[in-house]
Amino acid sequence: MAKILDRINSPADLKGLTQPELDQLAEEIRYEMVNTVTKTGGHLASSLGAVELSIALHRVFDSPDDKIVWDVGHQSYAHKLLTGRRDRFDTLRQLGGISGFPDRAESPHDAFSTGHASTSISAALGIAVARDLTGDNFQVVAVIGDGSLTGGMAFEALNHGGHLGTRIIVVLNDNAMAISPSVGALSQSLSKMTLDPRYYQAKEGAGQLVKMLPGGKTVWSGMKRLKTGVKGVILPTTLWESLGFKYIGPVEGHNIAGLEEALTKARNYLPGPVFVHVITTKGKGYEPAEEDSIKFHGISGKNSASNGIPSYSEVFGKTMLRLFQENDRLVAISAAMTEGTGLSLVAQKYPKRVFDVGICEQHAVTFAAGLATQGFIPIVAIYSTFLQRAFDQIIHDVCIQNLPVIFAIDRAGIVGEDGKTHQGTLDLSYLSCIPNLVLAAPRDESELGHLLYTAIKCGCPMAIRYPRGSALGVSVEKKLKELPIGKGEVLKTGEDLTIIAIGSAVASAMDAAWILNKKGVDCVIVDARFAKPLDSELILETVSKTKRLVTVEENVLAGGFGSAVLSLLSSIGGIRALRIGIPDEFVEHGTQELLRAGYSLNAEGIAQRILSFFPELARSSPTSKTKWLI
Amino acid sequence: MAKILDRINSPADLKGLTQPELDQLAEEIRYEMVNTVTKTGGHLASSLGAVELSIALHRVFDSPDDKIVWDVGHQSYAHKLLTGRRDRFDTLRQLGGISGFPDRAESPHDAFSTGHASTSISAALGIAVARDLTGDNFQVVAVIGDGSLTGGMAFEALNHGGHLGTRIIVVLNDNAMAISPSVGALSQSLSKMTLDPRYYQAKEGAGQLVKMLPGGKTVWSGMKRLKTGVKGVILPTTLWESLGFKYIGPVEGHNIAGLEEALTKARNYLPGPVFVHVITTKGKGYEPAEEDSIKFHGISGKNSASNGIPSYSEVFGKTMLRLFQENDRLVAISAAMTEGTGLSLVAQKYPKRVFDVGICEQHAVTFAAGLATQGFIPIVAIYSTFLQRAFDQIIHDVCIQNLPVIFAIDRAGIVGEDGKTHQGTLDLSYLSCIPNLVLAAPRDESELGHLLYTAIKCGCPMAIRYPRGSALGVSVEKKLKELPIGKGEVLKTGEDLTIIAIGSAVASAMDAAWILNKKGVDCVIVDARFAKPLDSELILETVSKTKRLVTVEENVLAGGFGSAVLSLLSSIGGIRALRIGIPDEFVEHGTQELLRAGYSLNAEGIAQRILSFFPELARSSPTSKTKWLI
Repeated sequence: MAKILDRINSPADLKGLTQPELDQLAEEIRYEMVNTVTKTGGHLASSLGAVELSIALHRVFDSPDDKIVWDVGHQSYAHKLLTGRRDRFDTLRQLGGISGFPDRAESPHDAFSTGHASTSISAALGIAVARDLTGDNFQVVAVIGDGSLTGGMAFEALNHGGHLGTRIIVVLNDNAMAISPSVGALSQSLSKMTLDPRYYQAKEGAGQLVKMLPGGKTVWSGMKRLKTGVKGVILPTTLWESLGFKYIGPVEGHNIAGLEEALTKARNYLPGPVFVHVITTKGKGYEPAEEDSIKFHGISGKNSASNGIPSYSEVFGKTMLRLFQENDRLVAISAAMTEGTGLSLVAQKYPKRVFDVGICEQHAVTFAAGLATQGFIPIVAIYSTFLQRAFDQIIHDVCIQNLPVIFAIDRAGIVGEDGKTHQGTLDLSYLSCIPNLVLAAPRDESELGHLLYTAIKCGCPMAIRYPRGSALGVSVEKKLKELPIGKGEVLKTGEDLTIIAIGSAVASAMDAAWILNKKGVDCVIVDARFAKPLDSELILETVSKTKRLVTVEENVLAGGFGSAVLSLLSSIGGIRALRIGIPDEFVEHGTQELLRAGYSLNAEGIAQRILSFFPELARSSPTSKTKWLI
Repeated sequence: MAKILDRINSPADLKGLTQPELDQLAEEIRYEMVNTVTKTGGHLASSLGAVELSIALHRVFDSPDDKIVWDVGHQSYAHKLLTGRRDRFDTLRQLGGISGFPDRAESPHDAFSTGHASTSISAALGIAVARDLTGDNFQVVAVIGDGSLTGGMAFEALNHGGHLGTRIIVVLNDNAMAISPSVGALSQSLSKMTLDPRYYQAKEGAGQLVKMLPGGKTVWSGMKRLKTGVKGVILPTTLWESLGFKYIGPVEGHNIAGLEEALTKARNYLPGPVFVHVITTKGKGYEPAEEDSIKFHGISGKNSASNGIPSYSEVFGKTMLRLFQENDRLVAISAAMTEGTGLSLVAQKYPKRVFDVGICEQHAVTFAAGLATQGFIPIVAIYSTFLQRAFDQIIHDVCIQNLPVIFAIDRAGIVGEDGKTHQGTLDLSYLSCIPNLVLAAPRDESELGHLLYTAIKCGCPMAIRYPRGSALGVSVEKKLKELPIGKGEVLKTGEDLTIIAIGSAVASAMDAAWILNKKGVDCVIVDARFAKPLDSELILETVSKTKRLVTVEENVLAGGFGSAVLSLLSSIGGIRALRIGIPDEFVEHGTQELLRAGYSLNAEGIAQRILSFFPELARSSPTSKTKWLI
């Protein structure tokens, strides 16, 4: 049978389809998604939950004239398949391929680029106000999950939207679960709302197709059932109405006809803001994802099979577990990323000392500051890119008061396939300018343990950044030790030049030194370990001798680690310096490996950059002078 | 008659007072506040509105065992007077004196340091959770204004607090007006709530005393009456209850007995979170402030009389007004600072194109991004310190999409008396690391106009930072011109060294050049104008000649302007460089003049630093070679 999806080149092609055809299309889209995403990796569960909603939205509204803004955007795969990107869908999240998130540069149907949570209502409101000022008449729809709704800026936008009273439609895609199970009183209130039970009957029949997909059944066993089937029967519509929105719902989110009816009602409601509450099942139709939507929130592609080495997140989780056992003043805070950061291991054993505050990075940090005033040592575990959202709280609530809050910054540097919105390539810069904050990065998983232990001992605000993915596989020292704050380490002596690297860049720099060694170039390798304070004594002494300096960091060069090293050395004349890092641009999606190679951040790239910058060093034969200290 | 206030050395001294004594105390506190703040400057209106509330809180709760967290903290003067800082109150906001905000370093009664809005509930919740983990039993109270409640993180904290269900008291100090009149649907809902009319009778009698104060009547005429006297009769308690809080109120906020009753009820309510809604009058008891609480939100001290030169904010407002007349695609956005930023001038003439979104910097920026996608050119006018709160939105919603949003960053650099929490000393660093963003700073008010015009023309994200207070008084060129992006200007040629300055530091550097000239030192002066992109051609050429380099900026050195210049020059050998700016510390409160002198950022300081760093340059007689280009 010919696939209906093959005929959908733009949303206009949806309009003539019958209800049975639409249902078949939904199945085809799910098949396509599971088939592709199990290879490419991606946000499967969210997108599976929004298939019918995407179809209904594109039938009721006329994109790109009407604007649909997808909050976060990890639920937008069906939208991508329906808006002319079917042929490129197998390039999802691959270098040069289509993005895993909406991207204005990719399609006119992507009204706003997203990636982080809670931005959609603000953006949609801006678009709506622009429409009003222009005298235009299109519709603006923000689609936001219940998790994103816990983020404060969504509330700011709702409040402003209700005040302005302009025509905007906010669709709450409520799967009663954010990335981690939604926390917050509002979520509890939401989950008290329910549908007429008959809506639930539609649920059972769906998704038989995808069970037969490759890999479809392999992850069944050992899964925890997190979703509760029963919902209450209360509708606190006053909540939305006190914010100035007309409330429609709740609506069953996997019934296309019902969705179209509700969305049409919203579209025809003039002139004010409308809130449409849609109940969906995350992972819908793909049983493994439906059963364990946390695991399937973001999955890795087949080709990125684990190498058996624990990830930094796992090492972090295990180390925290040990430290929690020893010290009952430790508490940990996650902003909806308890699983991803590795904290779930600690939460299982110490549920009262681990807090998942929802997608609320601002609150997470200031909440930690409050805990710290009472003698607790809070570890705030947030990905680098998301910590940007709490920048002022780090400054204003932690560092001005010099409180001992520890920031465990996962996914620092190049994160790979999630692309521009998720790269953690700015943290060394935006944190280096904050007084009182100590900023460190471990070169391997063993050092991560020592740095965490050091942070707990230091009594000051301290941030530790480490990369996404596998650690190095080095043996982890059992006994954690306190490292001297602001002291680096010479890993290799040499005479020709000094390479000072930090964090994940140290291993690449070491490998580069091997390559350079074969070319007769004899490097000093310094693991700076601390981006702030810098080990000025060590750096000044070493660089004064070699005169040639190379810094390596997986961070933008502007205001980053290398820039701080240069500033430190500014009073010494005669230094020639090369800084290796990310140039002044946003890093696209693609594998970490390819991206690192593209930025000369792998060993070969570093060696090549050095040989080009210091051509006088290239000799014909390997140097024998070199001395490895580790 | 002996003053009661003279007997209050700690909150314990309040406990035995009679109701008439308390009323007298409130009057005395108001007198003290008005008398002091009209000299020192400060946040008069907010603190006047919270006098009775402060007394009642300190009678019902036992600080410092019980913790009171003041949101923003600009309403905490009565609290300071009641907690042992009476004798130092005349040093308020002066260098070495007490802070204008709560400060943990200043008193154990300041449970949490504040300054920015919307942080109190998060901090209080952290403190409450720490109490629970420790098995302690004290009370935790957050006092938050209706303006601060519009900030998203307050909502994040309420939501988490309701979820945790721990004992915490949130007192909403609702004066139906934030710094600017509160916007937002929630505020409208709040203002529908009301008291029994009898509560309002208490209002009339108060405040006769302060009318007789010096300066008390001088600013009466021409004031706009902004407060509306009538409130509705609806209590949307479900709003708070859907967030998991028990609701008490509304309570008349200037009746101590009534406040004590409500707070006692809240204190005795176990075990969950309680929301106490208190209605106050901003500026209460001091008629000028009561009548125009916007003007009296923050007032300048007597000694800082205007020099007749317009402030940068005024120049910004006037320039925007001109540009709005010429270009109907311009829109402007303020986060509760329409007055302070100078935008009110534009809002009066173009109310539909100026948006005050409340204390919601995050939403402000993403709302602007939404507008920009539709061909509008939004100008987001936010103080430097508050823009920190929208750091991720600048990155994620504006710069990744390369949208032409203009950031007009007022109060950049040293702001003076508001101190640590309000200094704008980080923006050059935290903005420099963001790809796509152009970052500029005018050396005077004439350049501010040109840079705004340039930003509108450039079609890219651009930030312009300028200082608090008077501009230089230079003649403003009528015809605005487009300046080349990334091009600086040589203001003076010379041979001995190159001084590259940016923004407000240019004028000081020029004055320093005069001083140096007298000592026989002949400087090149470059106004970099753009911190990013740097004028690499000009800088490389100039510095290559003089070999000696000095950079000057009113920003932290870490990751700032000078650091970027050094990075640019890293490939040239033989440069000796001195960077002048703010060291790695938070800047205290005090006048801008004193603080600048303390950091060697005035002309004398710059000249001295240069002579110390380059002692070989000091000659006995003035140089005659010098050539001034402007």
